[in-house]
Amino acid sequence: MSARNAFYAQSGGVTAVINASACGLIETARRHRKRIGKVYAGRNGIIGALTEDLIDTSKENAAAIRALRHTPSGAFGSCRYKLKSFEKDPTEYERLIEVFKAHDIGYFFYNGGGDSADTCLKVSRLSERMGYPIVAVHIPKTVDNDLPITDNCPGFGSVAKYVAVSVREASFDVASMAKTSTKVFVLEVMGRHAGWIAAAGGLASTRDTAIPILILFPEIEFQQDRFLARVDEMVRRHGYCSVVVSEGVKGPDGKFLSDQGLRDAFGHAQLGGVAPVVANLVKQGLNLKFHWGVADYLQRAARHIASKIDVEQSYAMGKAAVELALGGRNAVMPTVVRKSNAPYRWSVGVAQLDKVANVEKMMPRDYITRDGFGITAKCRAYLEPLIRGEDYPPYRNGLPVYVRLQNAPVRKRLGEFRL
Amino acid sequence: MSARNAFYAQSGGVTAVINASACGLIETARRHRKRIGKVYAGRNGIIGALTEDLIDTSKENAAAIRALRHTPSGAFGSCRYKLKSFEKDPTEYERLIEVFKAHDIGYFFYNGGGDSADTCLKVSRLSERMGYPIVAVHIPKTVDNDLPITDNCPGFGSVAKYVAVSVREASFDVASMAKTSTKVFVLEVMGRHAGWIAAAGGLASTRDTAIPILILFPEIEFQQDRFLARVDEMVRRHGYCSVVVSEGVKGPDGKFLSDQGLRDAFGHAQLGGVAPVVANLVKQGLNLKFHWGVADYLQRAARHIASKIDVEQSYAMGKAAVELALGGRNAVMPTVVRKSNAPYRWSVGVAQLDKVANVEKMMPRDYITRDGFGITAKCRAYLEPLIRGEDYPPYRNGLPVYVRLQNAPVRKRLGEFRL
Repeated sequence: MSARNAFYAQSGGVTAVINASACGLIETARRHRKRIGKVYAGRNGIIGALTEDLIDTSKENAAAIRALRHTPSGAFGSCRYKLKSFEKDPTEYERLIEVFKAHDIGYFFYNGGGDSADTCLKVSRLSERMGYPIVAVHIPKTVDNDLPITDNCPGFGSVAKYVAVSVREASFDVASMAKTSTKVFVLEVMGRHAGWIAAAGGLASTRDTAIPILILFPEIEFQQDRFLARVDEMVRRHGYCSVVVSEGVKGPDGKFLSDQGLRDAFGHAQLGGVAPVVANLVKQGLNLKFHWGVADYLQRAARHIASKIDVEQSYAMGKAAVELALGGRNAVMPTVVRKSNAPYRWSVGVAQLDKVANVEKMMPRDYITRDGFGITAKCRAYLEPLIRGEDYPPYRNGLPVYVRLQNAPVRKRLGEFRL
Repeated sequence: MSARNAFYAQSGGVTAVINASACGLIETARRHRKRIGKVYAGRNGIIGALTEDLIDTSKENAAAIRALRHTPSGAFGSCRYKLKSFEKDPTEYERLIEVFKAHDIGYFFYNGGGDSADTCLKVSRLSERMGYPIVAVHIPKTVDNDLPITDNCPGFGSVAKYVAVSVREASFDVASMAKTSTKVFVLEVMGRHAGWIAAAGGLASTRDTAIPILILFPEIEFQQDRFLARVDEMVRRHGYCSVVVSEGVKGPDGKFLSDQGLRDAFGHAQLGGVAPVVANLVKQGLNLKFHWGVADYLQRAARHIASKIDVEQSYAMGKAAVELALGGRNAVMPTVVRKSNAPYRWSVGVAQLDKVANVEKMMPRDYITRDGFGITAKCRAYLEPLIRGEDYPPYRNGLPVYVRLQNAPVRKRLGEFRL
């Protein structure tokens, strides 16, 4: 069997460690040159495949590829673009086959969340459907931690660590100021539907460093009176408190507490700005001085404080994807399997893609305390191993050194394609 | 001469490294037990002195004091409280003398910014004015970097590093997303009147890692049309851009672009929320998809990414304060003196407090590019050494280990004092 080329693309919101998966994938592919020729990356995700805008990763030297492991963001560009359904419009799929044929692509690797798992699944069916032999493997990535089957999602551990560290630090700050100034600090974090990231804020408080923290989960309906009563109680008892609020928190009317009215290509509401809403409620209801922050992209780009476990798992997912593909496993996704909590041990598993696509894993109710404002011991036991270890990038003159690849284009062989 | 006790207090907004100054001060005082008896810290700053709420730092073991070096926030509590003028109401000063006498305090160390330098100056004059022998030394601290004479202010370097690192990371993120999604990222940073912190965002772009960044300084009047034209140009040329906006930016009407209407004890406007204002202007004016973040307390509490130079200088200021006091230098402040840029070399100097109090150091106009949206080479040469080096705290289970002192109270000897 002669070597065929591979296609790799990054999809959706990028993370601090998605490039670590790319690193694992490319380094592993390079060790199997007899089976995998070149790894072509899609420039800006699947759009690169559709427009035949391919990047030849073989032009990058080993040091550049190695540096992907410590570089946040998507080195080849990502996109928010969902393929049309095959039944409604097969044009895009026909084009993909055309591009794959033109560049002898036999392996399709798609690195993303739930939406891209669905895309990857569709591509995996092209093999039968359109008679084009291709092995499609999805590589999990999402800060939202909402993919099923896998114990956790690469990208999440590093955001969780960022949020836990930041909440601890800001809480120390507020505690210092509370006598005459700020008593409540509100931090808004990501998480449209699932409260995993907000939950990580609860990790900031440990037995040896207790911190009064209230968490507002998207899973729990926001009730203003109950919330204000808890803030009041916390501030009376501890002098201050920190509030971690998920961007996806909704009120009793089912509406997001704050909604900018924008929608992305997938039709998801574009959120932001719930922190000032919550902070002003505290001011109006309790007349307490507040500060608020919105971590936004900082939380998912913060490679400088990435979780070592997360980096290792992200790399392992990229590596496992190649090994699965070489084993002829079509329509699958490597997963993280938790073996034990203490000591934390994990291994690589595999999931069928049709069990992954379009399924959202919510926080189990028993991960949230009965009052709805905190995390349970069970949740802590789950989360805590995921933020373990530091994996610092190299620095030059005080700044982290992140790689920018050459991203040399592959010569086009086809005509244009209009998206 | 028998040993007299020392009083130390933290004032105003805390930083990632103010405790490093406390560490330097206490460790140095402990090496001079013949001259300095105990170091008493004010619980919640000067309020602790007025209410005789003193903390006996001699109860803390050497490891706890050493850990202050890597612990953000104010370990003894800070406050925003300005003493009344002596002429209008000498009551507070009389009370201070009473407390100092009761606890045999011969050294007064005040760790803060411009307002506290003024307080420290007033205390230094009590010696003559009220016949009580005391040596008062101010220790510089302010993330705003707006104290005169000293080359830079302890606390600033670490915020600058946080902002530079964060802008670099978020910019990598936006660059990945720009093809189909976010094209403009807006980060709001601190800095009421001086644009030093915003300027640090410019450091994210270096010769080897160029990034399109626009900075909105409080020193430069915000002109919407000019700003939008530059954003448009940046996005057309680079596909994306990052905007760093100081909370203190004002429009042509002289008003803050965003003002929550709150004021602190010093009468300063409490700001926040200029990022969403700027982001929405971009949306309305250019129809570009945006994200925005507000770093708020995260930036000044981020000990996890503190500048090593900043930590060293903060420690050195605490140490120098003790040495100045032992040399009988009243009404002074240790300073950072820059000896050279390449290689960066600095030493400890000394400033007369009456030259420091109530003087605000603004960004020199030639630190800002002519168009008002960037930093000049001169500015970069000034800023760059201040963010050099990493000084990571210890970690346990994925979280930084920050010390909480016992903060044992000193037995009171006086009656109550109503603030």
